[in-house]
Amino acid sequence: MDDFTATEARVRDSFARQTMMDTLGATLTALAPGRCVIRAPIAPHLKQQHGAAHAGLAFTLGDTAAGYSALSTMAGDTDVMTVEMKINLLSPAVGEALEAVGEVVRAGKRLTVVKAEVFALQGDSRKPVALLQGTMIPVAQR
Amino acid sequence: MDDFTATEARVRDSFARQTMMDTLGATLTALAPGRCVIRAPIAPHLKQQHGAAHAGLAFTLGDTAAGYSALSTMAGDTDVMTVEMKINLLSPAVGEALEAVGEVVRAGKRLTVVKAEVFALQGDSRKPVALLQGTMIPVAQR
Amino acid sequence: MDDFTATEARVRDSFARQTMMDTLGATLTALAPGRCVIRAPIAPHLKQQHGAAHAGLAFTLGDTAAGYSALSTMAGDTDVMTVEMKINLLSPAVGEALEAVGEVVRAGKRLTVVKAEVFALQGDSRKPVALLQGTMIPVAQR
Amino acid sequence: MDDFTATEARVRDSFARQTMMDTLGATLTALAPGRCVIRAPIAPHLKQQHGAAHAGLAFTLGDTAAGYSALSTMAGDTDVMTVEMKINLLSPAVGEALEAVGEVVRAGKRLTVVKAEVFALQGDSRKPVALLQGTMIPVAQR
Repeated sequence: MDDFTATEARVRDSFARQTMMDTLGATLTALAPGRCVIRAPIAPHLKQQHGAAHAGLAFTLGDTAAGYSALSTMAGDTDVMTVEMKINLLSPAVGEALEAVGEVVRAGKRLTVVKAEVFALQGDSRKPVALLQGTMIPVAQR
Repeated sequence: MDDFTATEARVRDSFARQTMMDTLGATLTALAPGRCVIRAPIAPHLKQQHGAAHAGLAFTLGDTAAGYSALSTMAGDTDVMTVEMKINLLSPAVGEALEAVGEVVRAGKRLTVVKAEVFALQGDSRKPVALLQGTMIPVAQR
Repeated sequence: MDDFTATEARVRDSFARQTMMDTLGATLTALAPGRCVIRAPIAPHLKQQHGAAHAGLAFTLGDTAAGYSALSTMAGDTDVMTVEMKINLLSPAVGEALEAVGEVVRAGKRLTVVKAEVFALQGDSRKPVALLQGTMIPVAQR
Repeated sequence: MDDFTATEARVRDSFARQTMMDTLGATLTALAPGRCVIRAPIAPHLKQQHGAAHAGLAFTLGDTAAGYSALSTMAGDTDVMTVEMKINLLSPAVGEALEAVGEVVRAGKRLTVVKAEVFALQGDSRKPVALLQGTMIPVAQR
């Protein structure tokens, strides 16, 4: 298999080991070098006090999509961790599902700067609800 | 009942309506004017790929503790939402439980600046694992 | 004059009153609804210890460009202030000049989310050196 | 001379090479392991459109104080650069001078998490005007 096929297998294996992703009902829906898309339903067990998706859901999906966008550009013997992440909430996260699109901004030798946009999906509509910007660091795979 | 007793009842009612808190097994363990503490076990369903607590758990607890620290200083007819929040991860979140301590930095007329520290608890040890800084905005209660 | 001509005059007047912009040798080189570009030379008096532009220069230009991108979408009797701003440094800011491009991400009723990219210019090259994401708030004009 | 005397000499030498600090009229007023204080007058050439200190001044002082708090804990052959920094503005920066107090939150092997508080000084009053949180990285000294 080619290099990115191996990378994708590695990313999907890592994703599958994240029990939090299962708890959120999240699926990794697209992966390309430097880009990762994750989707999760706005399920009844993931809400804040007004019935919208919890900010923690938007954060967790955006952070994870951003992290795997970084990992998709790294060598095979590394894993990745979040150094720091900032989220701005743009609109209440109301709808059927959230979709987080993570992208590499700059892949450096020691650190990778990433961003993510999170959208609320409802029928054909796709509304931006959050914007994230942060830093990932490679770590030795265990 | 005195003013803060009413405030505490309002905060605890709001907390109870957050289904995400139930999903995370979180409890509101202390509340004072401008300060809120939330605790959750590092349960098997809340982990990242290395078996530590997911960054999204530390974020969600810290963000929620910070939000209720802000709400605890506001008038009775308001609720609160996160404008933006930044998290720095300090150490892997390994242990029995996470404890998030949210505090008001400055309560302004239109916005409230907040911070939160998140600790990993293991036996008698209490290790800082994350630091958050952000902004809350009052919203009309529904 | 049309609406945006009046807005541009208001923005340029506000910019001219910022003595810091003069200290940095900054000029407002382009303005459109929701977008503002500011440029400054990497002058000898604006450096850090390695001879690159100080992170504070990239921040100040990016923050100001982002602020005026927000103001360019607001009604005539308001001014704008920074609530919070986050910067990721991508590369050392080396070259002849810095150019900051500020843009509105979402103009809300009470707050405006903004971003800015800062580039180092050297001859024909235009290299990204910083990425900012933050929040602006309208204030009554004095 | 003892170890910290050598460190302090190194920090003060680095500070002296930052031409931006001279432009801002900034002085390094205190240094201890993991803590650095920098002060600058709110001079006429450092203002925003309302006559308060520019947010870029608070940022630059806070970022620099935080950076040197990190450097004060590092070995003698390294220098330090900002990875990312976030600032929340708490109040208009009005007064005679700004004082930035930078502190190490956690010194890790590869990265150091820092924070800074910025105060506006006026006579005997010392009012918090900004709060910063960010990440520093050691770099080889040139």
